Amino acid sequence: MSLNLRLRSLLPILTWGPAYTRTEAVNDLVAAVIVTIMLVPQSLAYAMLAGLPPQIGLYASILPLVVYALFGTSRTLAVGPVAVISLMTAAAASQVASVGTPQYITAAITLAFMSGLILLAMAVLRLGFLANFLSHPVISGFITASGILIAASQLKHILGIKAEGDTLPKMLAELAHGLQGTNAYTLMIGVSAVAFLFWVRKNLKPLLVRAGLKPRPADLIAKAGPLAAIGLSILAVIMLGLDGKGVRIVGDIPAGFPPFAVPSFDASLWLQLLPAAALISLVGFVESISVAQTLAAKRRQRITANQELVALGGSSIASALSGGFPVTGGFARSVVNFDAGAQTPLAGAYTAIGILGATLFLTPLFTYLPQAVLAATIIVAVLSLVDFKAIKRTFIYSKSDFAAMAATIALVLGVGVEAGIMTGVALSLVLFLWRTSTPHVAVVGQVPGTEHFRNVERHAVLTDPGILSLRIDESLYFANARFLEDTIHEAVAARPKLEHVVLMCPAVNAIDASALESLEAIADRLAAAGVQFHLSEVKGPVMDGLKRSDFFEHFKGTIFLSHFEAIQVLKQKIASHQPASGHGATT
Amino acid sequence: MSLNLRLRSLLPILTWGPAYTRTEAVNDLVAAVIVTIMLVPQSLAYAMLAGLPPQIGLYASILPLVVYALFGTSRTLAVGPVAVISLMTAAAASQVASVGTPQYITAAITLAFMSGLILLAMAVLRLGFLANFLSHPVISGFITASGILIAASQLKHILGIKAEGDTLPKMLAELAHGLQGTNAYTLMIGVSAVAFLFWVRKNLKPLLVRAGLKPRPADLIAKAGPLAAIGLSILAVIMLGLDGKGVRIVGDIPAGFPPFAVPSFDASLWLQLLPAAALISLVGFVESISVAQTLAAKRRQRITANQELVALGGSSIASALSGGFPVTGGFARSVVNFDAGAQTPLAGAYTAIGILGATLFLTPLFTYLPQAVLAATIIVAVLSLVDFKAIKRTFIYSKSDFAAMAATIALVLGVGVEAGIMTGVALSLVLFLWRTSTPHVAVVGQVPGTEHFRNVERHAVLTDPGILSLRIDESLYFANARFLEDTIHEAVAARPKLEHVVLMCPAVNAIDASALESLEAIADRLAAAGVQFHLSEVKGPVMDGLKRSDFFEHFKGTIFLSHFEAIQVLKQKIASHQPASGHGATT
Repeated sequence: MSLNLRLRSLLPILTWGPAYTRTEAVNDLVAAVIVTIMLVPQSLAYAMLAGLPPQIGLYASILPLVVYALFGTSRTLAVGPVAVISLMTAAAASQVASVGTPQYITAAITLAFMSGLILLAMAVLRLGFLANFLSHPVISGFITASGILIAASQLKHILGIKAEGDTLPKMLAELAHGLQGTNAYTLMIGVSAVAFLFWVRKNLKPLLVRAGLKPRPADLIAKAGPLAAIGLSILAVIMLGLDGKGVRIVGDIPAGFPPFAVPSFDASLWLQLLPAAALISLVGFVESISVAQTLAAKRRQRITANQELVALGGSSIASALSGGFPVTGGFARSVVNFDAGAQTPLAGAYTAIGILGATLFLTPLFTYLPQAVLAATIIVAVLSLVDFKAIKRTFIYSKSDFAAMAATIALVLGVGVEAGIMTGVALSLVLFLWRTSTPHVAVVGQVPGTEHFRNVERHAVLTDPGILSLRIDESLYFANARFLEDTIHEAVAARPKLEHVVLMCPAVNAIDASALESLEAIADRLAAAGVQFHLSEVKGPVMDGLKRSDFFEHFKGTIFLSHFEAIQVLKQKIASHQPASGHGATT
Repeated sequence: MSLNLRLRSLLPILTWGPAYTRTEAVNDLVAAVIVTIMLVPQSLAYAMLAGLPPQIGLYASILPLVVYALFGTSRTLAVGPVAVISLMTAAAASQVASVGTPQYITAAITLAFMSGLILLAMAVLRLGFLANFLSHPVISGFITASGILIAASQLKHILGIKAEGDTLPKMLAELAHGLQGTNAYTLMIGVSAVAFLFWVRKNLKPLLVRAGLKPRPADLIAKAGPLAAIGLSILAVIMLGLDGKGVRIVGDIPAGFPPFAVPSFDASLWLQLLPAAALISLVGFVESISVAQTLAAKRRQRITANQELVALGGSSIASALSGGFPVTGGFARSVVNFDAGAQTPLAGAYTAIGILGATLFLTPLFTYLPQAVLAATIIVAVLSLVDFKAIKRTFIYSKSDFAAMAATIALVLGVGVEAGIMTGVALSLVLFLWRTSTPHVAVVGQVPGTEHFRNVERHAVLTDPGILSLRIDESLYFANARFLEDTIHEAVAARPKLEHVVLMCPAVNAIDASALESLEAIADRLAAAGVQFHLSEVKGPVMDGLKRSDFFEHFKGTIFLSHFEAIQVLKQKIASHQPASGHGATT
């Protein structure tokens, strides 16, 4: 690859940048204004969810967007703080420090830095495929359970009480315990905000459309609904002096440029945060790339997974160095960006300028914003992530996928986000191995008058008592190597007249070293028992591998090109040494 | 299953017991005498390797053998302490207590008890397939590295010096450091014993055969060679008073019946020992079942994996309750048992009586046995486990299997046995996923004049610019779901004239929930881009699954029985709406 091509693939902006048109610029600017309006309150809310001061949410929404604009391959992905990653940040940081301490903030910054490094390392080592470990049902279960957990964690803000707890049972117990301390004003504001936001989400768009607006602007106005809730609640607090009546407000947000921050380089802290940072990286990457791919496909654009690792890693490091916490591509805001007409990643850069403006000049506006309203925006946002239908669908389609999903949900709610996702991943692997460790094996016979061979249990086919034909419908590898040994051993033990075993391999795409040893062991054992072992219809690449190995020191049989040929040859062989016997084709 | 059948399957002795003949009894007794002679010094040696007093090795060789005789399905497996499990026991117990303390012995007993429970739980939950997680190269690498580690750990006894360290570099450093303290008498005894035992192993049998013995008795006499080394060295110590000259001896071994022991039930100790107990169970099970299967196949007998879990679990618990440490079926002694003509598991019970006799009456004989000679028997035994050829073979056959093997060896030697095997297992899973996450996908075209379709890159076949035929040679599941999306997306993006995509599925044995969602996403995205998505040659069970799901809400194409039919129909479809175009079959 020439230097020019390398640079272009590392900095996609070099490809689309020179051709940037005025129309694109206008579209990008419009999208940026709309996303900024949506992102400012979200940034404050997700910082609160992560247990961090509100301005840190804003910091995480500035520099990371610029870095993504330079390195990202998606034209419309909008990065920044997202709900699930904020929750994971809170869970990890609270393991090493108390909320409200400088150590807690340092932990969050360090998490962002580590997560960025992990993503970059994955890019360098081409480890993007690790995201495949997260099966869809596990991700779906994880997001649903996280949504429930996040919503439950925000109820204390709606009630205006204090409550701790990082699992659903603990949260509910603490809420029940503190219920008598509910602040009536806070509750009123919180419940109204939740109700209003749900109403906006469901009904405002149809209403606007009926009022004559076109669907797209109607949709965008509806997406800006939270702004109305925020404005109204701030007015209510100021005019009624609610902050003096126990309604907790956001308070002073320090205005100014994001600071230059340095993560901790304490080795023991890194070691403690490493599992969480790895999971944050993986979950963030999966969420981001799913969104990016869905949006890119709509416009027939391409996403490069490896380059996305670079862009997201760079964004997270940028977040850390500017005092922010882990970020990734968010679903809701990317869709808004796309719908608002964003054409290039510059829309993200413009958004960054918008958020910077808000950070410099608009923070005083949010001083009197009730925390209950931020909690309401979080609750409404995350409950849209909860997908019970997916659970039912998975249950109907595949019990083993459902088991992994159910375990993920139960552990996220009952133990914690990390335990949940790790158990889900482990269980989906174990179940996959369990499934492939007992592949479909059929005893086959010849369909009369043809060269085809079919399962003897389903078809009226011809077999020979001296020949056993087995077809295995799976690649042979360590998880099913022992099963293959057992199956052949059992079949042979049950057939005293047997002289030949032919394993039919048209569905065997690979044979690993474990399966190779098993085949050698089978060949040796059958030889010791006076039975010849043959293969048929072995695929080219598999055959090449066998030739490279010491397989033929053990295997003394024949490898037949077609199973039909195998049966013809072996029948003659049996007939030749038993000329008077009745060994013929029998049903 | 009737109660009778259930009992018979739980207690295999009920099946062969009633038909037990005098001939079988004689054969079993002869085998038992030979195995006892071999097992007594081995038991002392492996107890030393595990850091335990010598009598504990004897205890572990009595009751467990009786329990295995009742429950085991192998006729010839000989259970007891084995080298690798002893090493793992030492590694785990020394994490929680110091060698020589009562806590250390309790830890070893608790490990045996937990490992027994884990094996029984695996039997109840039918989790025997978990042993499949250990691929052959990982096991082979683990055993080779353990052999080297064990041999290195015994060098201090040969030199007569003190040395600690649980990794190869540490051991070598400590040995080098303590070298000037070498005891000349000890070294002489140790080196002679090692040389003699190697000579016996290699040359005694051919010598005896040349002297007129038949191969089998010659082999058995050669196997008893260690006894000569033991006898001679004891004589040397007594006659030359070497124990007064710095040669360390085994010392007094308390005689008597095995005690009734109780494991610790301290929850925190259990939690600390749990990973080690799980690994000991898994490794012990794999080693044992491999030996049992190999021997059973030679006589066309059957091993039931699940019942083996019961028998080995019971044996380990029996070991714990009689003051022993974890046991499993050993390779060397089972082969001796088999070669000596053992017919039924009663041979094991007779061996137990033999060992009990030794424990009651013969322990004074071993008082003056030099530890260097025990170390020599260990070194010679474990070095036969070291298999460098397997490493080379694996390297030639499969680079990814080799990677898992090399990582296992490096970590066992450099970090520890547990880290080694866990890394090996994790790496073989990751590499397997990596391999299957990029399955073979071919663009196919029609072989002229036939109904067959082949890879366009290898054959001169007919294709149509409006139709893309893809064949995927792997089941679709979470690890390759994203790859499938990417591949189709890329192929479509590169073909602007495309109207139909047909995915040919004859090698797709299963579609999990993740792959199902990917297929739905593909269908949706292609529809949005104006391309129709079809499937062909879908297998029966896969089709049943699709029908059970909501797949057909997304998929609006056709599922063709044969790919030939698909192409016929789609060509007509294209021709009908483009009557004047040049879309025909082109090469």
